[in-house]
Amino acid sequence: MNRRHFFKKGSLFAIGTTLLHPLDSLASNHDYDATNKNKKAKNIIIVVSDGMSIGTLNMTDLYLSRKTGKGSNWLGLYKNNKVKRALMDMASASSIVTDSAAASSSWGGGVRIANGALNVSKSGEAHLPIWQKFKKAGKKAGCVTSVPITHATPAGFCVNSTSRNAQENIAEYYLEHKFDVMMGGGDDYFSSDKRKDKKDMYQAFSSKGYQVVSTKEDMFSAVNNKPILGVFDDNALPYAIDRKHSKELVQKIPTLADMTKKAIAAMKDHDKGFVLQVEAGKVDWAAHGNDIAGLLHDQIDHDEAIQVTMDFAEEDGETLVIITTDHGNANPGVIYGSDANTNFDSIQNYKHTNEWILNGIGKETSISQIKERIHYANTIALTNNECQQLLEYYKNIATDNGLYNPRHLPFNLLATMQKQHNSVGWISMQHSADYVELAMYGPGSHLLKPFIKNTDLHYLMLEAAEVENKF
Amino acid sequence: MNRRHFFKKGSLFAIGTTLLHPLDSLASNHDYDATNKNKKAKNIIIVVSDGMSIGTLNMTDLYLSRKTGKGSNWLGLYKNNKVKRALMDMASASSIVTDSAAASSSWGGGVRIANGALNVSKSGEAHLPIWQKFKKAGKKAGCVTSVPITHATPAGFCVNSTSRNAQENIAEYYLEHKFDVMMGGGDDYFSSDKRKDKKDMYQAFSSKGYQVVSTKEDMFSAVNNKPILGVFDDNALPYAIDRKHSKELVQKIPTLADMTKKAIAAMKDHDKGFVLQVEAGKVDWAAHGNDIAGLLHDQIDHDEAIQVTMDFAEEDGETLVIITTDHGNANPGVIYGSDANTNFDSIQNYKHTNEWILNGIGKETSISQIKERIHYANTIALTNNECQQLLEYYKNIATDNGLYNPRHLPFNLLATMQKQHNSVGWISMQHSADYVELAMYGPGSHLLKPFIKNTDLHYLMLEAAEVENKF
Repeated sequence: MNRRHFFKKGSLFAIGTTLLHPLDSLASNHDYDATNKNKKAKNIIIVVSDGMSIGTLNMTDLYLSRKTGKGSNWLGLYKNNKVKRALMDMASASSIVTDSAAASSSWGGGVRIANGALNVSKSGEAHLPIWQKFKKAGKKAGCVTSVPITHATPAGFCVNSTSRNAQENIAEYYLEHKFDVMMGGGDDYFSSDKRKDKKDMYQAFSSKGYQVVSTKEDMFSAVNNKPILGVFDDNALPYAIDRKHSKELVQKIPTLADMTKKAIAAMKDHDKGFVLQVEAGKVDWAAHGNDIAGLLHDQIDHDEAIQVTMDFAEEDGETLVIITTDHGNANPGVIYGSDANTNFDSIQNYKHTNEWILNGIGKETSISQIKERIHYANTIALTNNECQQLLEYYKNIATDNGLYNPRHLPFNLLATMQKQHNSVGWISMQHSADYVELAMYGPGSHLLKPFIKNTDLHYLMLEAAEVENKF
Repeated sequence: MNRRHFFKKGSLFAIGTTLLHPLDSLASNHDYDATNKNKKAKNIIIVVSDGMSIGTLNMTDLYLSRKTGKGSNWLGLYKNNKVKRALMDMASASSIVTDSAAASSSWGGGVRIANGALNVSKSGEAHLPIWQKFKKAGKKAGCVTSVPITHATPAGFCVNSTSRNAQENIAEYYLEHKFDVMMGGGDDYFSSDKRKDKKDMYQAFSSKGYQVVSTKEDMFSAVNNKPILGVFDDNALPYAIDRKHSKELVQKIPTLADMTKKAIAAMKDHDKGFVLQVEAGKVDWAAHGNDIAGLLHDQIDHDEAIQVTMDFAEEDGETLVIITTDHGNANPGVIYGSDANTNFDSIQNYKHTNEWILNGIGKETSISQIKERIHYANTIALTNNECQQLLEYYKNIATDNGLYNPRHLPFNLLATMQKQHNSVGWISMQHSADYVELAMYGPGSHLLKPFIKNTDLHYLMLEAAEVENKF
């Protein structure tokens, strides 16, 4: 679109129509549609950033642009006119604001259900999950994620359950349906030491021919074209920025891009094709914590998984790529002010998440230790009074088992203090009702209209792959 | 995209390719591009919602869908696949978070300048505003807005000024360049009683052949094909929801759609075409006040102006329509919670803005009067304690002259109290750095890529109209 120089020196009326519309020589949606229209999607890869408000997408592009001179891969696809886009209405059957279970089920089962469930309606009706449909059609199917592999988003493509919380059962359902590559966190739901029923799920998967891996090295050593279960941490994987600043974690824990690369390699030679869900699950967790370093770096991990996916899809030519999120969360944004640029750029110096900061503080921590810890992690100098306010929270520390902030640490307070220094604001610590951004590349993408309902995506995937819905 | 029933009962392999892709029979971007590619935009209408975060667009569609069963006209264009879309980076020369003056100047002058100025760079270089370019190319040019017609957004398309605040001068520049239809608020900058220099700008416009109008009735009675100056209020026009609940205001003040209709009628017969900017300026003001009723109803006014514009453009066939905003503001959204639906729906009962509520309170107001006023306006029952907190603000009422909240009324506090009842949250009371949504219809829209810089729009408009940039 950079027409400035041409038009500045312009001699528009002296030149032909071809030069009048030089942009037409670029790949346009027009040509792109024509290319894809008569092709079937042999493979489908859906790359989900969980709980990504549009502000998260924008800030990540801005962060990368200012840090490296190159924006995000996601928006790079827009800048290079490679994809079709839509807004998607993610409401569930019970609320205009969905949770991840109902969101994934809308795509997975093609029906809106109530928050909390996985492909089971209030009436008890079960809807066959789309990865099972594709398995029945002869394809391989898998999921990789940065949260437990039994978490809501992968589970919504794979299984039926009246509750998303039944993660031990979900691990068993995965085996029952023989999904081909399942990788992420979640040892808590596979290990005989930790499961309530003491079943050894690793043994169960192994005995059915799975390669069970628990480190990055083992993952890359696993044989392709044979099923893989990869479980790399107790619950979720570490936040990307915390991983980057720990040699031990870098060595042990694969990135989302690593897992995506391996999953593709393991399934791509199958003659009937494969389907893969890639989830950056901790983008949502970071938004729940108003944790800007967690948010941006996990979104960057998502963005690197997009690159791996696109590299494959562009060479392959038979792969539909879907890039989206399941709902907004906390609607973050950079706020106007004379220091907005330098404040926002200061996040480039952050070394750790707010989770890392707050988990390292306890009742016995001194004010100067808190100050030092936050200065190390954020290069922010809090006042004694601010540190004291944070410390107050630890005096009556809660021990209940909430989903995202089990110890009730002062995430909100810390984010409010950081806001003065980084200019990032949040509307809440919860999901939002915003329609979400969606992009598509490859065969089937011509079917996308600029505004769709979440359930439309279920039928679009089937149609793109020409898989009849007769299950 | 509703393929559910077809695919549910599907007999996919028994039918031909035509039925496989029934969506292709709808108007697609593909066909749409082909239709527009060889056509010149004789007219351009840009319909700007000032300070519209994507959450504002989403909530308005959701509000209308739930209230009337029909969503917004803007998103209706997406649902009916009628437009091309992009994200647009609105950064100014001085900040990743633009103000309206720099934003409008990026479109108006094709160059990024610092916040606060109108088409004048830091170095003093002036950039010819695009409505002047189109005037030189023989077209008619005008602006209509719900804020003073001398405000930043219309001014950025029309004039050069080192400061957006020089609104008295801007009124004079408009006359100097003989813009054809200029309507909105702003008596403060035209009236000899109110201008510092005591010039009677109405007289000045009249003596140059303008029809000067100050009521809706006079506006509609004005003769077409002759220039019009319409100034309907002292400063900005009233908020849409306050107007709707006042017979007097409904009678006197035209809506944005009314002004749009008249401006089109007044200029459409010109043989060389016309350009028109339509601005819903008070969407931004409402966001600055975290004022949900103001925000949604002024966005609805914007949406009705879109309908007027599209009705004309679809019949005309030679008009490029651009629908967008100049920056996010406050990033509002509906927050997750068991009462999210009923809370959000309660806004349907709101009768007035927070501005109306707070301007009706003073030092002498009683707690019960405050309670009654807010119950009348919002059907919310505040506690005595909450009313007392609001009243505290009035004890030391400020008298300085800030841009959006001159009396420093407790907008933030009221919005925080309302949040418990309507589930709407805000990140701040300021602009945000978010990339913004943009849609295009008609000849020239095929030039749009999915991601552009603000300045690209300047050159796209010239190119669409085939106006050489040799000024």
